[in-house]
Amino acid sequence: MKVALDAMGGDYAPSVNVEGAVETVNEHDDIEIVLVGNEPLIKRELENKRYPSHRISLVHASQVIEMNEPPTTALRKKKDSSIRVGIDLVKAGNADAFVSAGHSGVVMATSLFLLGTSKGVDRPAIATVMPTLKDTFILLDAGANVDCKPENLLQFALMGNTYCKLLLGKNSPKVALLSIGEEDTKGNELTKEAFKLLKGTRLNFIGNIEGKDMFTGKADVIVCDGFIGNIALKISEGLAETIIKMLKREITSVSTGRIGYLMMKPAIRNFKKRTDYDEYGGAPLLGINGACIISHGRSTAKAIKNALRVASDYAGKRVFEVISTDIENDLIGRVA
Amino acid sequence: MKVALDAMGGDYAPSVNVEGAVETVNEHDDIEIVLVGNEPLIKRELENKRYPSHRISLVHASQVIEMNEPPTTALRKKKDSSIRVGIDLVKAGNADAFVSAGHSGVVMATSLFLLGTSKGVDRPAIATVMPTLKDTFILLDAGANVDCKPENLLQFALMGNTYCKLLLGKNSPKVALLSIGEEDTKGNELTKEAFKLLKGTRLNFIGNIEGKDMFTGKADVIVCDGFIGNIALKISEGLAETIIKMLKREITSVSTGRIGYLMMKPAIRNFKKRTDYDEYGGAPLLGINGACIISHGRSTAKAIKNALRVASDYAGKRVFEVISTDIENDLIGRVA
Repeated sequence: MKVALDAMGGDYAPSVNVEGAVETVNEHDDIEIVLVGNEPLIKRELENKRYPSHRISLVHASQVIEMNEPPTTALRKKKDSSIRVGIDLVKAGNADAFVSAGHSGVVMATSLFLLGTSKGVDRPAIATVMPTLKDTFILLDAGANVDCKPENLLQFALMGNTYCKLLLGKNSPKVALLSIGEEDTKGNELTKEAFKLLKGTRLNFIGNIEGKDMFTGKADVIVCDGFIGNIALKISEGLAETIIKMLKREITSVSTGRIGYLMMKPAIRNFKKRTDYDEYGGAPLLGINGACIISHGRSTAKAIKNALRVASDYAGKRVFEVISTDIENDLIGRVA
Repeated sequence: MKVALDAMGGDYAPSVNVEGAVETVNEHDDIEIVLVGNEPLIKRELENKRYPSHRISLVHASQVIEMNEPPTTALRKKKDSSIRVGIDLVKAGNADAFVSAGHSGVVMATSLFLLGTSKGVDRPAIATVMPTLKDTFILLDAGANVDCKPENLLQFALMGNTYCKLLLGKNSPKVALLSIGEEDTKGNELTKEAFKLLKGTRLNFIGNIEGKDMFTGKADVIVCDGFIGNIALKISEGLAETIIKMLKREITSVSTGRIGYLMMKPAIRNFKKRTDYDEYGGAPLLGINGACIISHGRSTAKAIKNALRVASDYAGKRVFEVISTDIENDLIGRVA
């Protein structure tokens, strides 16, 4: 698979982006990378790095999207941005997938404008993989749509199901709706309507799930609107960080704590790895008619590498096409 | 202050409830408790307990509300429930406050029906105190209103501000709106409208706050609708539990980890105490025209004791009256 990478997106661009690309081609024989962005800058980063040079190429883009630019302005005024040029490569068939750690709103708007949605999808959603006690689950929408209709949540559930089957290899994913109680009467207007729609699908719909059960592994796919999804995601990130800080502070205030902490360090490292965003890498824009993967603005080289692997896998399995087939099949099943 | 306690509400009722009441009168000279519920059961729990007996009295109630009963049915059919009888005591002036660890929806509906709202308040909200790295903050609404209008969020902010000043003793609380970005253009339709309203108040409104900053101490009062608030609260509880479990598992899988864990135990105990719901006790129904405090269904005796203390404080400072004055003053300030 040939993956176009936005070399200019993210807090540590272009160095970690180029680093992630180099590590990827060194580790995976079946991935080629197109680095998109300021050519001189990228070339400087590539100097003195060892990698199979025929598997990394460059495409110049003269503009960079800033993190505070409104998507509509960026789309209209920056036609030679690394994001736009990268997605254009996918559109023209010169790349199989696109990855960016830049402005996710601009990636969403540009991919929607250039590639459109998969058949049967009204609005794309950001799907994030998160850890549980046992395994992982997919949360969607993690921030693409702040105001949703019940039909949107239905489509998110169907898309999340397809993604979970194809990329996480789960056979009949347990799909749940994020709400404030398990009973179908619990929820707000949006989720109560969505609940009815979800009961009518062929999905393995297990009903509502409460926030407290999100991380227990009860569900493989958890569906909500993008406003709540983004808040849920950010609370989880923030709280995990806070808890580690609180623990460290408590530890250093107890006499035997410091020694204990040293002895526990490998355990804490493992724990951090399990809860580390970098390990899970990219979040696909499910429902875009093509493979577009966004990565955290704070992405490290490892996060970029993981996002590139997700992108290659997503494109290879043509998830954006299977989504349409699955939606159509589910609809036919319900009409028949 | 005289506080009526629902002796029948919560997972471990009536034993922890009675235990919490006894501890309260033993520790606080200025609190009297009225235990409301099944008299023979309560009497049995009180046997062999040492306490100043003139400061605990009993009022019989023959019915108990089950956790799965719809509030409207409970309100109509169980006129002699411990919740109803307890709130009636407040209404009749025979108690200054009411505390229940039972069905929060029924407590809300019954108090709304019997006591009504404070002047200037359309809908009451549940206000929960949560820990941060430095201190604590108030999250509201934590679950009373699943669908809200911008005006509701405005009132929640004003009520949260009053509560924070009076009960947490903060002078000019920093009030924030829970959203998906700090800029005022970020949010859903509800929060964007509420943002405009909040900018027009005399509150120390610091704008939007993201989920990741909830626990950093940036804000003293965080406002959101009850659907999101409940999910945010439950995610926090669930994630904190999950993280402790993950850490323990990682620790026991590392050879030096067990010894390290033993040495760290006091630190982990302190940490748990800081994040423990029991420490914060009750959440007031802000906006009800009277002092009604709900406590977690899983309340221990310590949680009940803390809820009783909050109830006494809330009633003593007549928060439900100051709320009306504060709302009126802010309105006048804006009209003038």
